[in-house]
Amino acid sequence: MMARTTIDDVAARAGVSIKTVSRVLNDEPGVRSETRGRVREAISALSYRPSLPARSLAGRRSNLLGLVYANPSANYVFDVQSGAMARCRDAHLRLFIQSCNDRGDETVEDVLAMVDQTHVDGLVVTPPLSSDAELIAALEERRVPFVRLAPDVVGTRSPAVVMDDEEAAREMTEHLLALGHKRIGFVEGHPDHPSSRLRRSGFEAALALAGLDEDQPVEQGHNDVASGLKAGRRLLTRVDRPTAIFASNDDMAAGVIQAARELGLDVPRQLSVAGFDDSQIASIVWPALTTIRQPTYDMAFAAAGLLIDLVRGRQVPAVTRLDHQLVLRNSTGEAP
Amino acid sequence: MMARTTIDDVAARAGVSIKTVSRVLNDEPGVRSETRGRVREAISALSYRPSLPARSLAGRRSNLLGLVYANPSANYVFDVQSGAMARCRDAHLRLFIQSCNDRGDETVEDVLAMVDQTHVDGLVVTPPLSSDAELIAALEERRVPFVRLAPDVVGTRSPAVVMDDEEAAREMTEHLLALGHKRIGFVEGHPDHPSSRLRRSGFEAALALAGLDEDQPVEQGHNDVASGLKAGRRLLTRVDRPTAIFASNDDMAAGVIQAARELGLDVPRQLSVAGFDDSQIASIVWPALTTIRQPTYDMAFAAAGLLIDLVRGRQVPAVTRLDHQLVLRNSTGEAP
Repeated sequence: MMARTTIDDVAARAGVSIKTVSRVLNDEPGVRSETRGRVREAISALSYRPSLPARSLAGRRSNLLGLVYANPSANYVFDVQSGAMARCRDAHLRLFIQSCNDRGDETVEDVLAMVDQTHVDGLVVTPPLSSDAELIAALEERRVPFVRLAPDVVGTRSPAVVMDDEEAAREMTEHLLALGHKRIGFVEGHPDHPSSRLRRSGFEAALALAGLDEDQPVEQGHNDVASGLKAGRRLLTRVDRPTAIFASNDDMAAGVIQAARELGLDVPRQLSVAGFDDSQIASIVWPALTTIRQPTYDMAFAAAGLLIDLVRGRQVPAVTRLDHQLVLRNSTGEAP
Repeated sequence: MMARTTIDDVAARAGVSIKTVSRVLNDEPGVRSETRGRVREAISALSYRPSLPARSLAGRRSNLLGLVYANPSANYVFDVQSGAMARCRDAHLRLFIQSCNDRGDETVEDVLAMVDQTHVDGLVVTPPLSSDAELIAALEERRVPFVRLAPDVVGTRSPAVVMDDEEAAREMTEHLLALGHKRIGFVEGHPDHPSSRLRRSGFEAALALAGLDEDQPVEQGHNDVASGLKAGRRLLTRVDRPTAIFASNDDMAAGVIQAARELGLDVPRQLSVAGFDDSQIASIVWPALTTIRQPTYDMAFAAAGLLIDLVRGRQVPAVTRLDHQLVLRNSTGEAP
């Protein structure tokens, strides 16, 4: 093994003090750009990689951020961690990712243990953990900087990155109404996710505006294909069968399409189906799903950026809202 | 903020030396089970969480393992990291996950920088990185303990966890032959993945045994839905159209089903389609895919376990092979 390059080697080569090297590493102001360039050249030439533990124990920032999740959706987790990792890479930081799945009551203990052990400078907290009041309170008490993704309540002490679930659901419902549908079923998402409530309320708002808010059938789902299939069967075997079904996420919409197929109903000729998220599945099912593109990667990228600012003592906005997009594919069409 | 509990507090409460606490934390032998119990009780009562950086700088193990990936499949990455994380949790270790996506030539530099900065004790290296000769050589030179998942070559200095891709592909081909198919198309996987070659060779071995090895149509794919769709179109517009298509992974099989639908071919009545992996997609497409269940989670779980043994100086087998499973669903049927 080669001897490790130290900060002294970098300082010597660049002809500056250790303190200056440290400032450049931390993106701190007060270093002339010519000097900064010389230090970066020395870092690169010597392949210098500051040891995170050494920095951490020296009482400085560890330059390690954390991301916690408790979500069974592979697509969601992958997008979230890819976005946060990319932002950390841009800032020469590292991201520690921790799953808190299946821990139930131990979530708070679990996250705090991770913070203590790894010395992360702060956390990106993803849903549904971002709406876990006990966890939020514990992090505030411990003064761990954190940014919440898609929480139920915004405008509190910790910043949040959100999209407008209610507005997006309203747009999708209006799309279905514009196609002439008057009887639209809704499959509601998992009760633990605050977005479920918002999406339903957007659905209802659009119907109310169209004077169709009475008596539209709603079924409870749990964000997975199986619950979408069951909800679809219930909706499609009603005497007053809907001509369109809006499912609160793509997985459940895929289940609704399966239910339609079982019952011999053609999508979209006899039944329009809409989803939400634009996950990988949306393009794979047949017909491809009309859905809402949730900017998961971008939201995580933004959250990590806000966290970096927070850790560096900068002011950040309480709420950052990212745009969604209505994606029209082949699963929706004119009412029969 | 509360003061951190230290190892001294634990030792005092348990009435043992710091060295004994350290032994218990590291699962080292030489501590009586009654003493071990007392130490564990004190650790739990005091919520003691050893600082990974402190351990690392003290020249001991960091109790942090690493996992590196460079794979665009959300399902694969999610399963791999879930399996490795679960094994680490069992052993009271933590897992640092790093994506090396889109870095091309910088992969080696990227992984070594991560090792240097985080002080991980060792690495789980996932495909296709596990077959990157340059990376493997660099890790060996640096004496970083590592375990490879599904590499091209096994029986080298670093242990490997594999499944038998060739045998699995042979079984799937035999399943199609048993259904009476005599003209079977194959969609080969991404050329960077060693499993692609093995799966094709299993396909060919089964055909050879049945005396059908001449002239079966093969198309190149790239492990994604789009390339499966293209390959499917090419295979299904041939004059001598196959009655079955075996795609080297589920995403490509989903693409083949889309191609069949475009051409008005019923699956499985007019065309049988088989996949490989049993990813989430296999149960979502319609008809649900007959496929091979690749034990991704279990392989990663096993790899992390081997790495823990390696780091602790124990002997581990050069090759650990896990069982796959033929999963029969609705996309395959009798030859027309």
